[in-house]
Amino acid sequence: MLTTRLTEKLGIAHPIIGAPMAFAAGGRLAAAVSRAGGLGLIGGAYGDADWLDEQFAEAGNQKIGCGFITWSLAKQPQLLDQVLARAPQAIFLSFGDPAPLAKTIEAAGVPLICQVQTLKDAKHAIDVGAAIIVAQGAEAGGHGESRATFTFVPEVADWIANNAPQVLLCAAGGVGDGRGLAAALMLGADGVVVGSRLWASEEALVHPNMHAAAMRASGDESLRSSVMDIARSLDWPERYSCRVLKNDFTDRWHGREDALREAGSAVADQWRAAWAAGDADGSNTFVGEVTGLIGAIAPAGRIVETMVEEAARLVGRQAAKTAKADA
Amino acid sequence: MLTTRLTEKLGIAHPIIGAPMAFAAGGRLAAAVSRAGGLGLIGGAYGDADWLDEQFAEAGNQKIGCGFITWSLAKQPQLLDQVLARAPQAIFLSFGDPAPLAKTIEAAGVPLICQVQTLKDAKHAIDVGAAIIVAQGAEAGGHGESRATFTFVPEVADWIANNAPQVLLCAAGGVGDGRGLAAALMLGADGVVVGSRLWASEEALVHPNMHAAAMRASGDESLRSSVMDIARSLDWPERYSCRVLKNDFTDRWHGREDALREAGSAVADQWRAAWAAGDADGSNTFVGEVTGLIGAIAPAGRIVETMVEEAARLVGRQAAKTAKADA
Repeated sequence: MLTTRLTEKLGIAHPIIGAPMAFAAGGRLAAAVSRAGGLGLIGGAYGDADWLDEQFAEAGNQKIGCGFITWSLAKQPQLLDQVLARAPQAIFLSFGDPAPLAKTIEAAGVPLICQVQTLKDAKHAIDVGAAIIVAQGAEAGGHGESRATFTFVPEVADWIANNAPQVLLCAAGGVGDGRGLAAALMLGADGVVVGSRLWASEEALVHPNMHAAAMRASGDESLRSSVMDIARSLDWPERYSCRVLKNDFTDRWHGREDALREAGSAVADQWRAAWAAGDADGSNTFVGEVTGLIGAIAPAGRIVETMVEEAARLVGRQAAKTAKADA
Repeated sequence: MLTTRLTEKLGIAHPIIGAPMAFAAGGRLAAAVSRAGGLGLIGGAYGDADWLDEQFAEAGNQKIGCGFITWSLAKQPQLLDQVLARAPQAIFLSFGDPAPLAKTIEAAGVPLICQVQTLKDAKHAIDVGAAIIVAQGAEAGGHGESRATFTFVPEVADWIANNAPQVLLCAAGGVGDGRGLAAALMLGADGVVVGSRLWASEEALVHPNMHAAAMRASGDESLRSSVMDIARSLDWPERYSCRVLKNDFTDRWHGREDALREAGSAVADQWRAAWAAGDADGSNTFVGEVTGLIGAIAPAGRIVETMVEEAARLVGRQAAKTAKADA
């Protein structure tokens, strides 16, 4: 067992939170992660009230939480009330200023998890009341920024230790197996947020073609870009880009963003049709650099359990070697 | 003591190699790292025969090695012979194809360390005879590419385990303290290559103003760019960029690379004058994202020893917690 401040605070067995991945993290995945001893989160994405109700229903009685894209939730804050009425275990906000929403979440007595991409934003999130900070590195799949998990996590850990020791810290971005979990704990995290590895699970709402593309790819074959957001006409603030697999679509448009904007709705229609059809070349596969460690699609619960067992084994093995060398 | 395959192979006490940082890693720094139980490397940079002789003389009788920028060394391969005549502990090559140089190094009976930035290049380096692969993440200071230490290291570790288990692996990029060392070992590395943290040592050939700038900066304030190479008219292949601190110079030119090329020698002269004067705004401070963890300039030997002690303590503490939870 890997017990940490996170397992104690959330009353869970393992220090693993399932990332609230847009479209991929529905109620079935969230419930599977919680059932295995982590905390599962539904991905609220760009906000669809009916879909959220369906996914909470799918999760049944499992204790789960929900995540939102902050700038999008700010446009329809009633969705937050809708989800808070479900008594979630936590609300997870990322990509935008959590300040306008934090009070509502605090008033509901629900822990606020803020995912951040810079030290500056980590400080702000703590100021507005985040109970748990998620330091997200650029290796993560989907949206994010440029800092690296390996250096960002210890820097936030130091700031928390010196200024707000009651706040917890999770690492996100690149955590795909027990090695990543053990490394994150060494770097000063209390736990991890796992995205891509759970995206590659049986319970994730992901087309089999996208799963197949990720299993084929090495980490060399992913990139951060904005072409998928321009194509979809999503209002992402410029600072955030999105990691996907390199494919025909990124070969065609990455670096030609102005031309893509001019191409307008014709490309948007093609992208959406390709996405709906599971066309991994004509739309995008939203997975992180950890794609190179993904060899099979597995049940989410087994992914969580394997990750914890491997991490505990690695830590124990290194400690035994160190002790032996000292003897 | 942290004994690993690396300490055994190189006959050193600690699994730490000092990065052969251009200009910063002279003989004094290399000797200090080796004296403390790691392996110190002189940074051969763009190749200056007299400077190399001086630095080897500075290192005295300490067992050290030497690193080169591969594409630059290929232009003056006689420097390799000059250094091999010194019986170095290892030759470290990065940034370019090691194939044309590998045979000479092998014939001299000197271990070849190849730093790589993609899985593809890791495979190639192993094919041409690298004894040690250094997987370098984009968080590193100075030149590099886009992959992240956190995901790149385990992916290379898997490839080595399955295809060339005799080859060793080090992590580079973001390793600045015992947390980073412990994390790298968890990710599957046999050791680490430490750049920025040793750049911030008393023995490094770094202007005090650059040290001061790094101590002030958080990791949020660094970026990868090519403006310092364009300004210096260095023939860096396009795939490599360079991490430095954000400053007046990068504010002015990053994103305006074409204008910088047109500005030509006037800017080059300004840059070199600023560099010589230790002007941290007019030239560049070559430090990695780990700058946010650097609070003081310390002796290199103490940096190495503190890193190892902290890593061993962290591993032992987590193992004890895990064992207690299982009891």
